[in-house]
Parts: sequence; structure tokens; C-alpha cells
Amino acid sequence: MLDSAVGQNLTPEQQANTNRTLSIGYVVYEGFTPLDVWGPMELIFQLSNVRNMTLAVISHKKGPVNARSPPHGVGHDPEIGAADYSHMVNPQIVATHTFDDAPHLDVIVVPGGAGYFRLVEETENTIMEDFLARRTPDADYVASVCIGSVILARAGILEGRRATTNKAAWTWSTNHNHGKNITWVPSARWVQDGKIWTSSGVAAGIDMMWAFLRHVYGPILDTVVNSIEYTPHTDADWDPFSVLFKVPGASQNQSQVKECDAPLPTT
Amino acid sequence: MLDSAVGQNLTPEQQANTNRTLSIGYVVYEGFTPLDVWGPMELIFQLSNVRNMTLAVISHKKGPVNARSPPHGVGHDPEIGAADYSHMVNPQIVATHTFDDAPHLDVIVVPGGAGYFRLVEETENTIMEDFLARRTPDADYVASVCIGSVILARAGILEGRRATTNKAAWTWSTNHNHGKNITWVPSARWVQDGKIWTSSGVAAGIDMMWAFLRHVYGPILDTVVNSIEYTPHTDADWDPFSVLFKVPGASQNQSQVKECDAPLPTT
Repeated sequence: MLDSAVGQNLTPEQQANTNRTLSIGYVVYEGFTPLDVWGPMELIFQLSNVRNMTLAVISHKKGPVNARSPPHGVGHDPEIGAADYSHMVNPQIVATHTFDDAPHLDVIVVPGGAGYFRLVEETENTIMEDFLARRTPDADYVASVCIGSVILARAGILEGRRATTNKAAWTWSTNHNHGKNITWVPSARWVQDGKIWTSSGVAAGIDMMWAFLRHVYGPILDTVVNSIEYTPHTDADWDPFSVLFKVPGASQNQSQVKECDAPLPTT
Repeated sequence: MLDSAVGQNLTPEQQANTNRTLSIGYVVYEGFTPLDVWGPMELIFQLSNVRNMTLAVISHKKGPVNARSPPHGVGHDPEIGAADYSHMVNPQIVATHTFDDAPHLDVIVVPGGAGYFRLVEETENTIMEDFLARRTPDADYVASVCIGSVILARAGILEGRRATTNKAAWTWSTNHNHGKNITWVPSARWVQDGKIWTSSGVAAGIDMMWAFLRHVYGPILDTVVNSIEYTPHTDADWDPFSVLFKVPGASQNQSQVKECDAPLPTT
């Protein structure tokens, strides 16, 4: 049902990607935010019907990974606080690989989640960051959703780069020496800096993934989002949530507050 | 971080739900559409931090359930056709219960997915429909996403009711004697008929779940969608996709084509 690339004006990068198989790796951990993973995943899933890609879901161990975060007791920051999540529901994704046996990855995607607050604040476990630092040089693209950008920061991947993050967890994300020489962009649905893509909180990941995959593959992404009846926010600078959550330096431009998207025109 | 119900004007139904524990059951099957499950799931997940609920993920067997559909070879309908999905990526959710040992359910959610075309067209397996027919009378609410409404139809649950479904699969969904005396609404993001809620395709499920949970719990849902930086389509009649996919009887009202939602005001 989806169009082929025939007749579309593709960039050389898009044409090359259309003709290759992309190895995609999703990094997950206990306490991932469900939509951070599965929103962008939907676009990858649908696109894999017409473009060649493979998927590895990579975590500390194989098998079911809880969306529910383990409790953490030490809140160093008012945005996090001490939290016991044991009353929450617990949908699970299945990890197919560990950080030790993951295949070569062309694309790496890193979600946010309350479980990462705990990993940072209460453990010395940097296996995930070490993996990302090791694998990023060989990857063509790296993308994060929500506070997934903090994971990239702590892996040293954002040094000298522009990036964004969850707007409700802005202070924690940007003020804790998570990484050196990072330009955090206060009003952005997503930010691209070279091969690194970072999005704002949770649902913003779907819009970033649309823009990212459109950059990678071309206009076929508009057919994909129409097929799932989704209207992406198509302006990377649109970010009323930066105003809502009082992010320092947020654009107060009122045009930020409203933005419309009808179904995208497809050829 | 989320508000309590204190000070909100709640309906008696909302007040009662705020003070009880809701048992939520997600029905899944091989070939579910990822966002059909995990989009609405995100709202349930976040809300479970401040409202009492339990989650059962229910399928034909426990353990990992593939999002990738098994191939099917017999296409009775041009909207489906014969399809081999074996090249697609395959994220997995974990089923915690079977149709035999699922707990009592107050809320049942049924997603769509390419795997259901195969279940209908190529198998005699009606275990899922039998389960839904058996459990719906005791449930307070039943909701479906995308062609999940066809599953409800085939379970006899939509008889005498209004409902909607995926707009790209409209003909298959509504024309195959899937159920008697159903009023299919051609232009609708979602439809409520009594305790039965049905949504349009895939992403529409998030908007329906926002409206549904808002009906169940009240304005706290607006705080939830803001916290995940999501702007729901708040008008159940908004449906430009019914026009895009040329659904017979679709509203041609051009006001359907554009609709804006800024972050929702919360008290």
C-alpha cells in the first residue's frame, strides 16, 4: 500500500539508504517510558514493510524489561524526589540482545524513563553509557527521546553539540554536570546536530522520528504517518511546553502556542 | 507531580472511580499494531502513578507476543491482499495472562493489527472474540483502537451501537458481515456509545484514551497529556483521514481539515 521510492526526488543520502539494510538498535532499561520507545517504534515498524531494516532491542539482560521503574529513595533534585513506583502498572518489552552481544548498529535510539533517574542517582552502573560511547562512532545516526539525551550526555556524545530534552525535567537534565560543553536548546520539539538527534519529552519523540526518518528515507514518511492517522508537529522550533514548564530562556513567542497540521500531502 | 482530585469538580462517576481500583485488561495477539497498544498504554501508565489500577496483558498464551504478523496467503479483500510480513521488524510485548486465567476486568482495551486480518480470514480461532463476549457484560468500559472494533463487532458487542474504525481499512471493516445492526460512523476520531468506546486508526487511539480516561477520572488527564508533551485532538468529530481515505459518507466539511490544540489548560 505504501509507495516505492520511484519518482520521488531523493537526496543521495536518501537514495543510498533506500537501497541498503539499516540495522536499528533500541536501548532500553528498567523504568523506560512506554511511549518514548513505542511511539517512534511505530514509524520504524510500519516503514520496515517497505524498507530494509533489522531491529535489536538491547538491555542489561535479555527477556522482559519492565516499564515500571524500581523505587528509588534518594531524591537529590526537586524535579525527581524520592519515589516508590511499585503501585504503577507494568507493561513489558522484550530485549533481544545485551550490551555485550548487540550486533553492529547503523541507528541507535535511546528513550527516557523514570528508571534512569535511579540509575544515575543511586547506582554506579554505566554499562549503558559505556555501550553508547563505544558504538556511536560506528553508527550513522543516534537519536534520543526525552531524558534519553541525558544518557547521551553522560556517554560524552553531546560534547560540543546542540541538544534538547524533556521540558518538565529541564533543570535536572541540564544542571547536573551530565556532560561538558553542551548547548541545551530550551524551546525545541527536537534538535538535529549532525548525526545526533534529540527530542523533547515523550510524545515529541514521534515527531522527531518522523523528521529523522524523513531525513533518512524521504517523503515516504508522510505516507506512513497518514496511514497511522497521525498528524506530526512538523516544526522543530514549536514548543509550547517549554513555556508551560517555565524553561529558562524559552521562547515566549505566542505563535509557539498554536500550530496546526492536517494530514500531510503525499505524492 | 500530578494533582490530586481535591478541588476538582468531578462527576459522581469520576469521584467513584477516583476512589476505587480499576482492573484493566489489554487484549493482544500476534500481529498487533505497536502504537494501538502502547499509545493508549502511556496514558494508563502515567495515570497509574496517581490513581489505583492494575494491568493484565491477555493473549492466546503467556510470554512474548510478536508485533510482526504471521504471513497470510489468502487475500479476500483488496484492502488486505496477500501479505508476507516476515521481513518486518518485530518488537514484542509480554502477555501476563491467557484468555483462560485473566482476572476480573473493569476495563477492556482491544487494539488492531495486521495479525487480525489473518485470524479472521484464515483461521477458525475465535477464542479472543469468545472471551470478549463473555467478559463484556461484567466490564464497566470496553475500548477498541483501529480495527479492534472489528474484533468487538465479531464478538457481537457492537450490535445496535454506533462505532468507528480505521479509515484506510474501512471497506473490509464494515462490509464483511462482521456484525449485525452496527452504525459505522464514517467521520470520527472516536465514538462513544454507552460503555463502548471505539477509535479510528492507530494514533487516534491516544486521543480516544485521553477522552475515555477523562470521562472516567476527570480533568487530571489534561495534566497527564501535558506531562508527556502530547497535544490531543480533542474533537471526536475531527477526522480529515476519512476524507483522505475516501470513506463513503465522510464529512467534506473543510473545517475538518485543520484543528489546533495547544497544551491543555489545567487547574
